[in-house]
Parts: sequence; C-alpha cells; structure tokens
Amino acid sequence: MMSRFIIFGFLLATCSIAFALDPSPLQDFCVADPNSPGKDYISQHMVLFAIFIDVHIHKKVSIFVYAVFVNGVVCKDANLVQADDFLFRGLHLMGNTSNDVGSNVTAVNVASLPGLNTLGISMARIDFAPGGINPPHTHPRASEVLTVIEGRLLAGFVTSNPENRFITKVLVKGDVFAFPQGLIHFQKNIGKGYAIAIAGLSSQNPGVITIANAVFGSNPNTAGDVLAKAFQVDIKVVHQIQSKF
Amino acid sequence: MMSRFIIFGFLLATCSIAFALDPSPLQDFCVADPNSPGKDYISQHMVLFAIFIDVHIHKKVSIFVYAVFVNGVVCKDANLVQADDFLFRGLHLMGNTSNDVGSNVTAVNVASLPGLNTLGISMARIDFAPGGINPPHTHPRASEVLTVIEGRLLAGFVTSNPENRFITKVLVKGDVFAFPQGLIHFQKNIGKGYAIAIAGLSSQNPGVITIANAVFGSNPNTAGDVLAKAFQVDIKVVHQIQSKF
Amino acid sequence: MMSRFIIFGFLLATCSIAFALDPSPLQDFCVADPNSPGKDYISQHMVLFAIFIDVHIHKKVSIFVYAVFVNGVVCKDANLVQADDFLFRGLHLMGNTSNDVGSNVTAVNVASLPGLNTLGISMARIDFAPGGINPPHTHPRASEVLTVIEGRLLAGFVTSNPENRFITKVLVKGDVFAFPQGLIHFQKNIGKGYAIAIAGLSSQNPGVITIANAVFGSNPNTAGDVLAKAFQVDIKVVHQIQSKF
Amino acid sequence: MMSRFIIFGFLLATCSIAFALDPSPLQDFCVADPNSPGKDYISQHMVLFAIFIDVHIHKKVSIFVYAVFVNGVVCKDANLVQADDFLFRGLHLMGNTSNDVGSNVTAVNVASLPGLNTLGISMARIDFAPGGINPPHTHPRASEVLTVIEGRLLAGFVTSNPENRFITKVLVKGDVFAFPQGLIHFQKNIGKGYAIAIAGLSSQNPGVITIANAVFGSNPNTAGDVLAKAFQVDIKVVHQIQSKF
Amino acid sequence: MMSRFIIFGFLLATCSIAFALDPSPLQDFCVADPNSPGKDYISQHMVLFAIFIDVHIHKKVSIFVYAVFVNGVVCKDANLVQADDFLFRGLHLMGNTSNDVGSNVTAVNVASLPGLNTLGISMARIDFAPGGINPPHTHPRASEVLTVIEGRLLAGFVTSNPENRFITKVLVKGDVFAFPQGLIHFQKNIGKGYAIAIAGLSSQNPGVITIANAVFGSNPNTAGDVLAKAFQVDIKVVHQIQSKF
Amino acid sequence: MMSRFIIFGFLLATCSIAFALDPSPLQDFCVADPNSPGKDYISQHMVLFAIFIDVHIHKKVSIFVYAVFVNGVVCKDANLVQADDFLFRGLHLMGNTSNDVGSNVTAVNVASLPGLNTLGISMARIDFAPGGINPPHTHPRASEVLTVIEGRLLAGFVTSNPENRFITKVLVKGDVFAFPQGLIHFQKNIGKGYAIAIAGLSSQNPGVITIANAVFGSNPNTAGDVLAKAFQVDIKVVHQIQSKF
Repeated sequence: MMSRFIIFGFLLATCSIAFALDPSPLQDFCVADPNSPGKDYISQHMVLFAIFIDVHIHKKVSIFVYAVFVNGVVCKDANLVQADDFLFRGLHLMGNTSNDVGSNVTAVNVASLPGLNTLGISMARIDFAPGGINPPHTHPRASEVLTVIEGRLLAGFVTSNPENRFITKVLVKGDVFAFPQGLIHFQKNIGKGYAIAIAGLSSQNPGVITIANAVFGSNPNTAGDVLAKAFQVDIKVVHQIQSKF
Repeated sequence: MMSRFIIFGFLLATCSIAFALDPSPLQDFCVADPNSPGKDYISQHMVLFAIFIDVHIHKKVSIFVYAVFVNGVVCKDANLVQADDFLFRGLHLMGNTSNDVGSNVTAVNVASLPGLNTLGISMARIDFAPGGINPPHTHPRASEVLTVIEGRLLAGFVTSNPENRFITKVLVKGDVFAFPQGLIHFQKNIGKGYAIAIAGLSSQNPGVITIANAVFGSNPNTAGDVLAKAFQVDIKVVHQIQSKF
Repeated sequence: MMSRFIIFGFLLATCSIAFALDPSPLQDFCVADPNSPGKDYISQHMVLFAIFIDVHIHKKVSIFVYAVFVNGVVCKDANLVQADDFLFRGLHLMGNTSNDVGSNVTAVNVASLPGLNTLGISMARIDFAPGGINPPHTHPRASEVLTVIEGRLLAGFVTSNPENRFITKVLVKGDVFAFPQGLIHFQKNIGKGYAIAIAGLSSQNPGVITIANAVFGSNPNTAGDVLAKAFQVDIKVVHQIQSKF
Repeated sequence: MMSRFIIFGFLLATCSIAFALDPSPLQDFCVADPNSPGKDYISQHMVLFAIFIDVHIHKKVSIFVYAVFVNGVVCKDANLVQADDFLFRGLHLMGNTSNDVGSNVTAVNVASLPGLNTLGISMARIDFAPGGINPPHTHPRASEVLTVIEGRLLAGFVTSNPENRFITKVLVKGDVFAFPQGLIHFQKNIGKGYAIAIAGLSSQNPGVITIANAVFGSNPNTAGDVLAKAFQVDIKVVHQIQSKF
Repeated sequence: MMSRFIIFGFLLATCSIAFALDPSPLQDFCVADPNSPGKDYISQHMVLFAIFIDVHIHKKVSIFVYAVFVNGVVCKDANLVQADDFLFRGLHLMGNTSNDVGSNVTAVNVASLPGLNTLGISMARIDFAPGGINPPHTHPRASEVLTVIEGRLLAGFVTSNPENRFITKVLVKGDVFAFPQGLIHFQKNIGKGYAIAIAGLSSQNPGVITIANAVFGSNPNTAGDVLAKAFQVDIKVVHQIQSKF
Repeated sequence: MMSRFIIFGFLLATCSIAFALDPSPLQDFCVADPNSPGKDYISQHMVLFAIFIDVHIHKKVSIFVYAVFVNGVVCKDANLVQADDFLFRGLHLMGNTSNDVGSNVTAVNVASLPGLNTLGISMARIDFAPGGINPPHTHPRASEVLTVIEGRLLAGFVTSNPENRFITKVLVKGDVFAFPQGLIHFQKNIGKGYAIAIAGLSSQNPGVITIANAVFGSNPNTAGDVLAKAFQVDIKVVHQIQSKF
C-alpha cells in the first residue's frame, strides 16, 4: 500500500514539473536541460525510481511517461553547465540522401545543441544527391541565410506581396542567399555531383512545414473535396497524391 | 513665380516623405498616411504638382510613380488626425463569393483602416457560399481567432510538431476557434445556406499565403520537376494544375 | 504519522510547480493547462490525493490551495491536445445587461479558450441594453478593434498626446473602430434597442482597468484627500462616490 | 542663381526628412534629431529657406509648418553626434510646485535628452510641496521605479487582477518602490517639508495619462451622462467637476 | 527505509521545480518568489523537511541544494503579494568604497526588489571615493541613464560604429548622461570629495561585465598568448596583470 | 526647361529619401536600398543631379553629402527587387590574414547582403592563419553559432554570472559551438595549417566590439589613469599598450 502511495505521490510530483524558455535571454545563458519534456522521453530519474521501487517492494510498476509542456524548454543549473553544453559534433558528416526527395537536413537547434536555448539562432547542413531537392517548405519562426559549400543549387522563394512572385537564383560554391521568414522556399541540386549547403536560422527552434506533406500527408487526411477545390483538380488526383504520403 | 514654385514644390517634397512603422506603438497612435507608399500608388501631391507645372509652363510632363518603401507605413500629423481615421465602414455587407472557391474575405487591416497602424491588431469578415471554402493558407505574421456569425463551417489546421497532425472541428453559430501563427489552415461551409465568420488577427498587416496559388500559381512558375518530386506526381499533373492558376 | 509525512511532502512538491508562457509562440501552439494556477483553483490531482489519504488513513486533511504563479500559464502535452482546446462555444448568446452600467462583456481570452495561450490575440462580445454603457476603461496590454453587429453606439477614446483630446464617433451596424493601446475608451448604446459589438484584442490576456472602479472602488479605498485634490472636488463628494462602489 | 536655389532647396529637403525610432536599438545609438517632427515645431531649415527666398525674390511667403510624423523620432548623423547629445542638465533644480496639485515633474526623456532615443529608458524628478500630490495617472508604455531623495511620501497603485486591489506604502528617504506598467498610481507628500523623488521609467517615451484630466478635462468633454453612469453620480456633479478642468 | 524513500522521492520532486520570467509582463505584476533558484540558495521548505525527517526518523540527511534554473525567476501567488514586495530600503546609505577601484554599486534589481520581476526596469546607486572609478564595463541586457546627486564625475563610453570613438563628458550635480546598451563605459570621481550617482537601467536584470576582470581575471585564466596577441603586449605583462585578479 | 529640372529633381529627391528598419519584418521583405545612409556615402542620385545642373547652368556646385540616419536602413521598392538583392557572392574565398592578429572576418550582413534587412540573421566566414586569433570581442546585438569547416580552433567565452567563468573548448572540423549574446569570446587557430569557420549571428547588424581596441585604441584615448586603475597596472604600461593601437 505504501508503494502505491509513493508511486501515486510521485506521479503527482512529476505532474508538477514545468519549464520555461524565452526568445530574448534574461541571463548570460540558459542551457536546455536533458530532462526537458521538450525531448519527449521518460525522465531518467523516474526510471531509476521505478526500478528502485520494483526492487524494494516487488510490486509491478506501470511505466508512465512524464510530460509537462510549456512555451520552450527548461535550463540546467548554471553552475553545472559545461563547455560541452555549447557543443554539437559532426556537422562535417554527410547526411543520408537516399529518400524520395534526395536530400537530408542535419539541424543544429535547441534540441541537438542545448546551449542554443534562448539565444535565437540555429544552424543546419543540407546535403543533396544529384537532382535532389529540399522540397517547398516554410519556417514559421525564422528567416534563413544559406551558403553553398559544394555544388550547384537552384534556390527560390515565393512572395505573398507582390502576390505569388517567384524569386529564384542559381547558386554556386560561395554564394549566400536569404529566405525571408514565413515564405515558401526550396532548393534543388542542379549540379552533376552531390551538393552541400550550410544555413543559419533566426531562432533556436525555427520549425519547418513541408508543404506537400502538410497538405496531402496530414493525419488524419484533410478533406479531399477541400483540396480538390483549392488545387482545382479532380478529387481522384487528390486521393492519388494523398496515397503517396 | 519661380519662388512660389520652389516653395510649393518643397512643401510637397516635405509632405510626400514616407516613414516607418513599428510593431509596438511608440506613441498613442500613428495613423497611416494616405500618401504612404505602402499603398503603391502615385502621390496625389506629386500629380497635382505635375499638373501645376503643366499648366504654368506648358510643357509635357512624363508621369512618374512616386514610390518609397519602408518596413511599414508612414503616419499622419497627430494634430490632423480625425475620428474617421480610426473608422472602417461596411463590414456588415456580404462579400462577393461567385469565384472558384466560393468565398470572400473582407480584410480590415492597416491598408483599409489607417488607425490600426502600429496597433498590432486587425479584423476580417469571411463570407462563404454553400460549399464554399476559404482555401488552405497561412498568415506569416499573425495568429487568428474566428467566430461563426451565421451558418456551419468545417475548420482545420495542420501542425508542424507533432508533424502534420490535422486538427479539425465543425463550427456552428457562436463558436470561436483559434488558428496558431504560421500554420496552414482553412474553413469550408458545410451548411445549406451562406455562412459568415468574423476573425481577429494579431497584426495590422498579417499577410496571407494561399498555398495552392503560391505553389502552383507563382509567376514565373516554380520549376515543374521540383513540384513533381515534392508532390510525388507526374510532371504532367503539375503542369495541369499550374494551367488552372 | 506516515500520512502527515506524505501530505507535508506533497505540500512541498506542489509548491514546486511552475509554468511558463511567452508573448511570442516558441512552438506551433501551447494550449493552456486546465490545472494552471493562472486559474486560481485547487489542483484536481491534489483533491484526489487528499481524498485518497482521507479514505486510507482516516486522518483529517486541512485543504490547502495549490498556487504557484508565473508570467503566464502552463501548456498541455502537445500530444494530448484536442481540437476542443481551440474552441469556445456560445458567443452568439446575449450577456446579462441588468446591472448598473447596462452592459455585459463576454471575454474569449486565454482563461476561457486555452488554445489562445501564447498566440497574442483574443476576442470579446459586448452587449448593451438601451442606454447602456461600457464604462471608461483601459487595456494595459492590448489595442482593440471593434465592429458593431447590431444597434447604434457612441464610441470614444482620450489621447495623452495631444493631451486629453477626445476622439469620438457614432458607430452603426458594420462599422469598425480602433482603440489604441493603453488609452481610456468607452462605448454607449444610443440606439432604441439592444446593441451588440464584437472586438478583437492584441493579447491573449489584455487585462482591463475600469477607471471609476479602480479610482473610487479600490480595496482598501484610496485616500479620500488624494482623490479630492486630484478631481478637485470636496472630500464629501469623494466619499459619496466611493460609497457607490 | 536659380540653380543655387534648387540645390540649396534640395540640400534642405534632404536635411529635413524625418525618420523612425525603434524600441530596440539597431545600432550603437540613434540620437534624436533637433528637427524631428516629434518636437512638433517649424523646421529651422525651412524658415531659413523661406526667409532666404523672401530676401532674394521679395515675395511674400505664407509660413508653412513642417510636420512629418512617424513611430518615434529621427536620428542625427552618427558622425555629427557630440557628447552633449547624451547630456541633460539641471535635474538638481527644484520644480515649481505652486499649482493645483502641489507637485512638479521634470521629465528627462527622448524629448529633452536626444541620446535616449531607442534606448528604452528615461528618468524623472518629482518635487512635492507639503501636502502636494502626483495625482493618479498611468504610463501606457512603461513601468516605473522610484526612490525618495528627500521627505516622506504615501505611494500606491491599484491592480486590475486581483480586481481593484489598492497596494500602498509610506516611503521615507532611501526607499525604492516599483509601479507596474499600465496600472493607476500616485504619490502624496505626507511630510512636513518639501519632498523629492527620482524615478526611472522603462521607455524613452513613457507617456502619461492623468486620470482626472483625461476623464473630466478632455477636449471636447466626454458626454456627461456617460460619466454620470460610470461614476454613479448625478450629472450635475460631473459638470461641476468638468468645470474645474 | 521508508525515510530513504521519501527523501529520495522528495529529491526527485525538488528536481522538478522550474520557474518562468518574461521580458514583457503578461499580467499586472509577477513578484519574484523568495524561493526562486535565481537566488541560488537552499529551499527553506526543503531544510524544514530535512529537519522534520531528522527528528522523526533519527536518520542523517545529507543536505542537498535545491536548484532548477530557467530563463528568469518565479513569481509569488498574486493574492499573497504585499506592498513590501515592491519595496527596497536604504538607497540613501553610502556604499563601502574602500576597495581597489574606490567605488561601490548598490544595485536595486530583481534580486533585491522582487516586485521588479518582468517590469524591465532597475535602479542603482554608485558611490565614489575621491579619485575612485566605476571601471570600464558593459551591461549585456540594458541601456543606462545616470544622474549625479553629489560631486563631479568624468564619464565616457566607446562606440563600435564609428569604430572605437570615445565619447566623454565631465558631469556635475544635476547632470544626466546616457550610456547606450552593450557599449563599454565608465565613470571617475574627479572632484575633491565623495561623489554619488543614481542610475536607471532598462532591464530588471541588466547584468554587468567588468572588462578587466572578465579578460584578465577569468577562472580559469584565458590563454596568455591569446591576450598577449590581442593586447599586443609581452606575455609577461599579461601574466603580471592576471596575477592582480 | 526649369520645370523639367524641378520634376527631375523631385523624382530624385523622392527616390533618395531614407527610411526605417525594424527588428521584426512587417512585410515579406524590405531589401536595403543602395542609397541608404547606413552606407554613409554620397547619394549617386544627388551627385548626378548636381552634375546635371552644373552642365546645364554652368554654375559651380559645392558638393554636399547626402546623409540621413535612422534606426536601421531604407528599403527598395518591392516591385524593383531582384533575386540578386538576396545574393552575396564569394564566401568560398579566403580572407587576407596577414595582419597583427592573423585572422580575417568576411561579414555577410545587411551592409553586404541588402536582402537581410529586417530578417534578424547574418553570416560570417572567419579565416585563421596558423596561430592566428579572432581576438576577444562582443556582439552587442547578437548571439553566435559557429562551425569549423577546416582546421582546429581553441574557442572560449567568459560569463558574467557566474562571474568571469571561462568556458572553453577545442573545436575540430564539423564541431558547432555557441557564443551567448553580449559575452566576451574569441577563437584561436591551434592547428598546423590554416583554419576556416562559418558563423551564424542572430541579427542583420550584430555589431562588434573588439575589447583591446575599444579600451586601449579609442579615439581620443581613454584617460590613462582610469585604465591603470581598472587593469591595476602602471600607467606606463597603459601608454605602452595604447601606443600599439
């Protein structure tokens, strides 16, 4: 009975965890905590505790996922922060581009580099197989600046005002191109070999909405008749496209 | 006579300068100036001036567009501001929904209600014909809250994290629904008659990106092979869709 | 004794709850949690727990209110969010206007529509009995845009610079009027019947300060001599007014 | 000679353009320009120009007010900025308190210290005659922190949530008190002699709304019946109070 | 064994504490909580609890420091807030200037005046012994406005653009001087007696980086060869300077 | 002929007016204008105009610098914007590192890539000769994330709280490191060959303050006795260091 107590009490205790992040830093740094629910996994403490109970009371413990969510992620004790908290390794490694679009994005944001928490900046490496594309997408919370490290890219974005103007450029090694916040943009590898780009984004958590997947691959599916009317195609075409996602 | 010229011209010059807008007001109000380049039309002052010269010197004047652009729009002299500057009339009037999507948006933003300049708020009325849709779109600079005044709507938006989750609801008269900033959302009239909704948006210039038009109706067209790969359809389908826009 | 333990321990645990909200969203959405202390009520978990102990230990439990407060409110687990979290029902219903001022405000803000949390927008319906007023007030954290759905209103606000200028307008059905942030404003129903208005506000928690109540109805009362000197009336008049609130 | 005119005119035109201010600095500093319309007076340049023309052409010049308005004020050329642009002199001097309320505010904001432009901070000295009050007012764009240099003050503010709670304190020399943004607050000299306070405000242009003057001293007057109902007094009392302002 | 349980469980519970602060207030006020980890000390609650266990179970309890850190500090229950939460006492008292630089800063920020939390403003008193300096430093999160209460100061700051321009002024009683955000600035007492200044800063937690200490007094020391090259001095000089800090 | 003059002149005048920039975009984009005073050079338009007059009227024209300054930079007409406005070329080229510190920064900010205006993001390439350093500096308006493209770097920054803690790391190819806003940081090439890094910064105009140059190389010099006391060295050492800058 005591153990039910403690588990129950603990369950409540864990319900009381909460975190905070702010777009502008309110101190020198605020390193994201590895136990942050922002990472959606079971608190190591809790697993330890569950095992602890298991061993000592010999009672089954239904594993419960600890999850409290807020606007951002929690920080570590500034006194426990290490240089490694500001470090991400391996951006020189090529991403796996053997997929439908032939590209891969390695994101270095608050989820992979905790020290970026509250700093309003993140980075990404994009690899392109020959002919590969980084499909049309938007970042709801960031503008982007991208430089070509290797290869030849066709890059473009569409403006909302002037309405639906397509601004595009062929980029070669050493070129830097800007993509304004919230606008639909893409890149395509038009060179013979692989291409590599490095991007800076104006948020530690820029977010990404890949248009085709959001519109035709949502779960559950967006009503077909709405998409048929919006894209002015037969509903069969909509279902055909939806079946691919 | 020349001096009247220069004084008059100079007076106009000083009257036709354009200024900046800020997301947070730095004074009580900053009413958008009718001559703001934000509205992209020929300065009345300058046309008057051209005519003035025409009349007095009997010389042809090539009409020139006065256009200066800034991050926002210019304000009027606070002492010349009238109550009418804070007023927009006619939101009770039904919009014309006889179009491909069967809906119409009447936007009350800084372009139509100058007093909203710098206030970070705008409003819209959406009319729906039976079966009409407000097609999937995003507002790059605003969240939205919408209430149904008349009729029955299917509303929904797609989240980016959790990835591509479709959140949808049937809304009836008196329902209020929220659409988070930057996410793709839509409404459809699923009632028998016309439907009316009123929305509040968290910016005086929220912007709108209608997905289908931005992707398939851009000018010039986005490369067909990019869209074919992104939407995983045959390029013929892409061209077919593009031909509609 | 064990139970005192657990209750005490639990009391402390609950003291450790905290939440976060941010004016600009740092993820797609951050739906306010029904257990948020922002709503000032006893945590359901805690009540359950108190009862649980009561039943099992047969000890009296002094009910304690769980309250930890921060700058905003906590969010739900994004994976548990439902469409209903973005929904408020009943804005078509008339509010009860049988009160001293003859008006009623139905606020749709983060407290009543959790999905508005972090979105920087809210909505309100204002009902007016014939002759009813929405008395002079300010919103410390929002500008307002208001449209008349039914009836005839006299609306106005007072500017601080130019000093104390009164900007006023008679509004009829379909009119939209803007009230700049922080300025004192009001509306009065000058029509024969009831009047209805719908407002958008540029914050999920705009706040409201009704001037007369704040000045003459504060608790405890603001020193009478201060108000007498400020309003340049006899202190008897101040006490007379204070007695009404 | 005409060309000198035009060049001179243009030189002035280009010198007398007005610009924008931003809540967060986008460069080291952005010193307010003496010709900024924020100061609402005739451009010295333009007057010079008018006189120049007057003298040379012997034509009457209708004086025109140069007024261009923006969200904030214009900056000087950074290369012309002098140390004096960051300096205000005389805050040690007592203000004249022989007025209805027996107090005087010496404001050091962007209007009197140009270097504060874009810095988000300002200062004020408040002098109180014995029994004098700094009447109930709000700052729409700033919070305030105030320290007593000399004397004994009763200070207070009223909260909006909890509703209309009056928070008050007697302050003596060396006390520092905080007044949250947008809330109605006041101070009263309850000492025998004169009192002095120095305040910091979180904006270069905090603004001030003196409640009594805004409500009863607006121009034109706010409708008496609205105030009578709001303050629950006879309309005669309203007119009596209005007559004082 | 039970007690180990509870202590362990409690330890976990305390690990789950987190707080939030926001640069712009989202309610009237958000008074910093005395138990905020921002103050880095052991939770009184936890000490009480440890003692409680000690007494009742007669088991040693290793004292553990309660520390969870976020972007800002937690608030008190608004209903428990007292006027004293907005009060700091003793700014009229002289600070102890018998130190290497001959000055003392008494800071009134969120750490010493909890009511300043979220208000974006703080204050400081600086005392100078004859010849004392407030050495070159920057505030990473605030601009500063300073007024001389007593004495004669040499004040200055260095701009980054135009590059490394030194802007300086001799300040006497009643002078107010502005220091733009992020720029290196200092003051020196050039009068015969002690000097006093009062400053306002545009953040409740402005932060301070004293250049000499940060560069030559860091822990561990910054590599000497880096500083030697940066300051273009012999490494011996660097070590000599480092030895002083 | 005069009228062509005046029209032409006005056309130019209206084309060469400068406007404001805002940290958050208020439209899709706001491309910096080549005539922006942010670039501090003579308006080509105005020079053309002066020459034009010179030629036609045969009058000497005193060259005048066109310089208007604002909080940010002016934008181009959105309709004249070209893809090239979002493009910077040559970031693959090595910078010249033959200087005192053996490093070179190629900055891609609003000054070199106009399309970054208002987007809140910029990029930089840093080249290091063997043993070269990017000396201790701060960015008053940005955090930084840096990745090593080639070579081996020692990177570090000093925190203000905990006070003067030195956080340092050896970075190899593919490592990404974060430098929080406003903190003093540096990098040193500790490899055998040249090193290359690419950085993202959270502002289109981050600014840079090189500590040694700002403190010892200011113009005019900061008073030697102040620096002697601050750095606790003999004034001779200060003068010796100052002589190097």
